[in-house]
Amino acid sequence: MSEDKDRDLSRREFVQGTVSGLALGLAPAAVLAAASGKDADKTAVLAQIPKMHAENLKRLQEWIALPSIAAENRNFPQGPEYMAKLAQDAGFTGVKLIPTSGKPGVFGKIDAGARTTMAIYFMYDVKQFIPEEWSSPPLEARLVQKAGLGTVCMGRGAVNQKGPENSFLSALMAFKAAGKKLPVNLVLVCEGEEEIASPHFHEVIATPDVLAELKRCVGVFMPEAGQDRDGGVQVSLGAKGVVELELISSGEKWGRGPAHDVHSSLEAAVDSPTWHLVQALNTLVEKDGHTPAVEGFFDKAKPLTAAQEQMIKEHAAKTAEATVKQVLGVQHWVHDKNWVDSLMLLESRPTINIEGLVGGYTGPGGKTVLPHKAVAKIDMRLVPDMTAADTLDKLKAHLAKHGFADIEVNMSGGYDPTQTEPGSKLIQTQLATYRKLGLDPQLWPRSAGSWPGYVFTDAPLKLPAGHFGLGHGTGAHAPDEYYLIESSNPKVQGLDGAIASFVEYLYALG
Amino acid sequence: MSEDKDRDLSRREFVQGTVSGLALGLAPAAVLAAASGKDADKTAVLAQIPKMHAENLKRLQEWIALPSIAAENRNFPQGPEYMAKLAQDAGFTGVKLIPTSGKPGVFGKIDAGARTTMAIYFMYDVKQFIPEEWSSPPLEARLVQKAGLGTVCMGRGAVNQKGPENSFLSALMAFKAAGKKLPVNLVLVCEGEEEIASPHFHEVIATPDVLAELKRCVGVFMPEAGQDRDGGVQVSLGAKGVVELELISSGEKWGRGPAHDVHSSLEAAVDSPTWHLVQALNTLVEKDGHTPAVEGFFDKAKPLTAAQEQMIKEHAAKTAEATVKQVLGVQHWVHDKNWVDSLMLLESRPTINIEGLVGGYTGPGGKTVLPHKAVAKIDMRLVPDMTAADTLDKLKAHLAKHGFADIEVNMSGGYDPTQTEPGSKLIQTQLATYRKLGLDPQLWPRSAGSWPGYVFTDAPLKLPAGHFGLGHGTGAHAPDEYYLIESSNPKVQGLDGAIASFVEYLYALG
Repeated sequence: MSEDKDRDLSRREFVQGTVSGLALGLAPAAVLAAASGKDADKTAVLAQIPKMHAENLKRLQEWIALPSIAAENRNFPQGPEYMAKLAQDAGFTGVKLIPTSGKPGVFGKIDAGARTTMAIYFMYDVKQFIPEEWSSPPLEARLVQKAGLGTVCMGRGAVNQKGPENSFLSALMAFKAAGKKLPVNLVLVCEGEEEIASPHFHEVIATPDVLAELKRCVGVFMPEAGQDRDGGVQVSLGAKGVVELELISSGEKWGRGPAHDVHSSLEAAVDSPTWHLVQALNTLVEKDGHTPAVEGFFDKAKPLTAAQEQMIKEHAAKTAEATVKQVLGVQHWVHDKNWVDSLMLLESRPTINIEGLVGGYTGPGGKTVLPHKAVAKIDMRLVPDMTAADTLDKLKAHLAKHGFADIEVNMSGGYDPTQTEPGSKLIQTQLATYRKLGLDPQLWPRSAGSWPGYVFTDAPLKLPAGHFGLGHGTGAHAPDEYYLIESSNPKVQGLDGAIASFVEYLYALG
Repeated sequence: MSEDKDRDLSRREFVQGTVSGLALGLAPAAVLAAASGKDADKTAVLAQIPKMHAENLKRLQEWIALPSIAAENRNFPQGPEYMAKLAQDAGFTGVKLIPTSGKPGVFGKIDAGARTTMAIYFMYDVKQFIPEEWSSPPLEARLVQKAGLGTVCMGRGAVNQKGPENSFLSALMAFKAAGKKLPVNLVLVCEGEEEIASPHFHEVIATPDVLAELKRCVGVFMPEAGQDRDGGVQVSLGAKGVVELELISSGEKWGRGPAHDVHSSLEAAVDSPTWHLVQALNTLVEKDGHTPAVEGFFDKAKPLTAAQEQMIKEHAAKTAEATVKQVLGVQHWVHDKNWVDSLMLLESRPTINIEGLVGGYTGPGGKTVLPHKAVAKIDMRLVPDMTAADTLDKLKAHLAKHGFADIEVNMSGGYDPTQTEPGSKLIQTQLATYRKLGLDPQLWPRSAGSWPGYVFTDAPLKLPAGHFGLGHGTGAHAPDEYYLIESSNPKVQGLDGAIASFVEYLYALG
């Protein structure tokens, strides 16, 4: 589903070919410690990181071995209970499971007596996986050598999101080990349904004592492995919203066609719900086969600001289009747009995408049936100020208007877009921290993917929200997902450097 | 695939609700024997049938235990070798496997010194199956009680086509056991790829010595379980042709969109091969969502003759529309046609049907991908004088004309329509035999399904071709397929009655 690593994935695919001439020349934790220098407390905390390397890695591997998958009802309540134990071990107090209509959230806080309170968003669930597709068993979290990168930990959830989250917890444990107080107070909110589009996370947030604690925060961030393969980082100011749904055409609901699969010869005398679906789908896009044709779809879509366009132009100039095209296997952008304009579209355009088609016989070869049902799996991406509810209503109205009122629209998940001000303390501290660590972070208007930041950035909280963290990994939702442990490239941080980046960020926030 | 039981299936679904006042009052073999009476030889042969009941049933059960499935390359060469052994046991001589570019055919003959030579068409393969969907293990061929029917043998291939074929072989074994000569010479041609649309059966027929033997025949028939649940029988004069194919839209072939699945957020800037497929599909039917819109599709389609229309009207009058609708789960025929006109469509209209849609993510819930490929599984049914090759060409020309030349058209199987004259000896003898057995057979213009009869009815053989046999079964291609063994309804024949019907037919042909 749409979540941090989706965001990261789409972004990384566009920046993987970066030609920006960054020259960090950083070595992991030791250099970070030296670079941050003066503060004795911080030096003491950073000094713990290499000593705790083995236990930090082991904790990640053990967490990966327990996959919580809401779509499969896998490892509940073990998954949230394990999450709660991890939080307690890292020093969170008042840790508890927050019941929802779906899988429980997990809450905890650390009162360090600091002036500033920051919220942290975790997901403890992971995406489904098919072990046969992996080169290394996805729950064994083995260490694997990757040419040009170093040693990675390969397993489901390694980068999305257990690796970065474990690194953040490791940072807190370094404070504990050094006997130092945190420079900020923390509020932790975790969910277990991120991979099914966070259908109940708003219930966690709306829980009175959780809400009260969040209201004290200056912002919220999710730990991420924010470095691309060349070491570059972006600071994203938001994300598109998303609606995931199924369009289901069935003889039963239509009142035409068969109520169960019948022999295909009968199509001579019996309507086909599959043709009906094809016709309905065809109305959703213009003749160009791409532009959404749902009435009013773009009404609330805000155009990019001049500042946002500038960010895109800067990124385009630093990034090799040819490499991005090669990675994606794309020869032409839509409408044969140039590189800058393709990125403008990526950032500004709401979309209607077919994720999947499933109808009738789907196995090898053919089978002569007239299917009674056909399904299109759709995702719609939304930009500010579109909302999930309004867009869903417009889709339904469109279908009804065009004679497809019988087609079921089953929304399975989704949420509104999220946007955070570049001037917020959260973002400014991110930029400052990255720069202090020798990086040249690029601002980016929003992820074209999605994460449920709206629960923080919308009313009643209206908090700045983002992602932060050095380190590298990839393969979210795919086989052979990994998180970098020992980096062979000094520009890219491994486990210890990622942990150190969180220590730096916490001090900068404090 | 499209084969005898497809034909039967679609037909049976339309006649299952028959209200024709047939009153056979037949009991199984003994009565059939009495009814046929005079000929001492025949009486002696028929008398063997009840004695051989157990071994005839056992032979069927053992055959079902060995499923030959071309699509899965299952049980080759064991399947054709077993078929050859069955033929030898039934008295065929010169039995041999006929190699083809695919799975082998099986050939054999019986020279009884008779004036007439008849060809028999067998398929030794069966449809794929999913054991979990069955209430009885599909290869165990268990005996199961069915309310209103009696004892059935349940297993894959029970009715399509091993049951009827084994009954025909049992009839030949009854001649052997009685020490009587066959009244006709027989030529047996078997194929093992019927369920994948007989892509190489014409090679079997074209084998010089096979062709030479077939040229001596007055016609060809396939054994079937021809009785519906109420005992009624139809004599079908042909079948529609069929083309099965996949339409494949891919980024790779299109040169637009991604070459592999990418994150769905990229749809803002990247074309979607799935939308491309939806648009292509949409051009294949008229705005009514049903009528084929491929240019020239109907050009060669012959209208029904007055005689054919009369057959349909007679059938409609004898068959309860409401029951047929209930069985199919259909509330309205296409275009809201009445019962007679819906049957006219069934018989006269060529079709373009979507058997299946497969694109992107097809599992439970959603997955935010922009798929690089989407596939529609299509079958087209053809009426005389359309041909498979010409119709395929027209489809390809249509796609190219409408801007979809990149969409791959992969034909997986199919063949031309087949039609046999009602005045042929084959058909007249069928009608006479059924009537002699107390039934009132209905002539039917053609099956709306398909079987590869064209290899017999077209040049160079130009033989009449059809199906024959009493008995009952259903579930071809579906779970819980069965063939009736002990009938509790005197109007419907079980195993012994089905075998006896073949004895009667062979004498009538002789």
